[in-house]
Amino acid sequence: MVLDLATIRAAHACIRPYIIRTPVLTNPELDAASGARLFFKCENLQKAGAFKARGATHAVFSLDPGEAARGVATHSSGNHAAALARAARLRGIPAHIVMPTNSARPKIRAVEAYGGQITFCEPTQSARETTCARIIAETHATMVHPFENKHVIAGQGTATLEFLEDISELDLLLCPVGGGGLLAGTAIAGKALRPSLQIIGTEPAGADDAARSFRAGTRLPLTTVDTIADGLRTNIGEINFALAQTHVDQIVTVSEAAIIEAMRLLWESLRVIVEASSAVPYAAILEKKVAVAGRRVGIILSGGNVDLDTLPWLHSNP
Amino acid sequence: MVLDLATIRAAHACIRPYIIRTPVLTNPELDAASGARLFFKCENLQKAGAFKARGATHAVFSLDPGEAARGVATHSSGNHAAALARAARLRGIPAHIVMPTNSARPKIRAVEAYGGQITFCEPTQSARETTCARIIAETHATMVHPFENKHVIAGQGTATLEFLEDISELDLLLCPVGGGGLLAGTAIAGKALRPSLQIIGTEPAGADDAARSFRAGTRLPLTTVDTIADGLRTNIGEINFALAQTHVDQIVTVSEAAIIEAMRLLWESLRVIVEASSAVPYAAILEKKVAVAGRRVGIILSGGNVDLDTLPWLHSNP
Repeated sequence: MVLDLATIRAAHACIRPYIIRTPVLTNPELDAASGARLFFKCENLQKAGAFKARGATHAVFSLDPGEAARGVATHSSGNHAAALARAARLRGIPAHIVMPTNSARPKIRAVEAYGGQITFCEPTQSARETTCARIIAETHATMVHPFENKHVIAGQGTATLEFLEDISELDLLLCPVGGGGLLAGTAIAGKALRPSLQIIGTEPAGADDAARSFRAGTRLPLTTVDTIADGLRTNIGEINFALAQTHVDQIVTVSEAAIIEAMRLLWESLRVIVEASSAVPYAAILEKKVAVAGRRVGIILSGGNVDLDTLPWLHSNP
Repeated sequence: MVLDLATIRAAHACIRPYIIRTPVLTNPELDAASGARLFFKCENLQKAGAFKARGATHAVFSLDPGEAARGVATHSSGNHAAALARAARLRGIPAHIVMPTNSARPKIRAVEAYGGQITFCEPTQSARETTCARIIAETHATMVHPFENKHVIAGQGTATLEFLEDISELDLLLCPVGGGGLLAGTAIAGKALRPSLQIIGTEPAGADDAARSFRAGTRLPLTTVDTIADGLRTNIGEINFALAQTHVDQIVTVSEAAIIEAMRLLWESLRVIVEASSAVPYAAILEKKVAVAGRRVGIILSGGNVDLDTLPWLHSNP
């Protein structure tokens, strides 16, 4: 499977009945503060509250009937888990979801609500992988990795197809980087449709493996990370790193304080809920890590799943 | 000026360049919980964060050039103030806004950001009216009342034009009631376009003048109110009460606890910010004040201007 514009277009045709064509919001105050024209693609308003619905749905609906009947499996504590459970239910097949015991309550409830079959494991990477491998051995389910999966990457790229159809002549496109599936899909679609478009990955300084790797020209995974942006604590995957090297212009990092400030400003100005990970691109603008003045800037707001009992600006204040 | 469908259509043509055609959101979890199909018209994502932009813009752009040159004036502590300041700036004329000294900081900042000329007064109804009258005497500005103004009412009705164009075959349409401008505009447009559509006003029990008045068949203003829904503390106006008697099917009331629960559920499920006033219609569904099972229910989410430092579910918990 080649990851190119045609693949992403085919993915879009495949998933269109099951996802939302999310709105693009603009805001004069945020424009004035940045000196740019900012366009926010609201994947926080996507089904299951994140762009992850795109990739997971594409992966599930790409299975042949025999594979599909045996179900799908993944390990995830986050938005991919709910997105995969939802996609499996849409196709009428089982979804086996391995979740660490310390997963956030709302994330567990979301997987349950979509009928996912949860197996809890110790909160370590090896326990997650071992448990998932055992379930796959028992059920012959197909593993759908959250980001190291070409169907998933092609699905994530579909947000950019819609974005560039709706908003013409973007100069820059910013998105967050965790495992890199969104960045890779975005970059492939963006550069194919508009070669002059600059693609910029944005990452918390406390989980900056992608930025370091990009500078070094080789993958440098981190073993410890520290960031409020829970969706971005993962190291960038091998496939996605290779794609980023080819198609991405720059990866910049931001402070935790800027992420919290950006999150609050987006809530207040756009009146939508974005999770911390989604605030990272706008944090890069606040911290002037990207030159945006006078330019037309696209930002993918990646997700909106937040624990409303623990808002960071309330808890970080004395 | 007759308030009918033609007037509302003309208002829509007038304001369309200056407002957002707001999206309609749906959510499977909220549908499952209510046993209905719920459609949320997101006026919280409107310019200046509330439906008030519609009425204020229509009023400002309906002035003849001579009137317009002298500017507009109003007294308001809330969303109408920002909406009027914005509309005046779009037309390039002054907006004189009388605000009580105890107005919320974000509301004051919003008026300032749109270039409104603020005069502060004591936080009483009579001080507001006296101060506004003095400014009008000095400037010859045109008063644009927040709800007792036919251009404003026609503007508020334009949300329902869009809503019924986008979503067919609604059975019920719910909106909050404060001064009644939104309810009146909604009811005129809704009944004209779809005579079988039930129009239901929803009001906090702690500010239930419209519900009492509707039952009694005569206006019964309250002198004290107690509700978190700050946009709905006003008594229904005379024009709007008369229109409600003709075009509205029912006005129901909800508890404060239901408003807070509804607000939180809407944030969590729809991933948009709604202010307390906007949560009142969904609170009526939670409290089973409206029979919605098996029906297609439209809800106008009226606004999204919230002080993010004081979320009611965090402060009401012990």
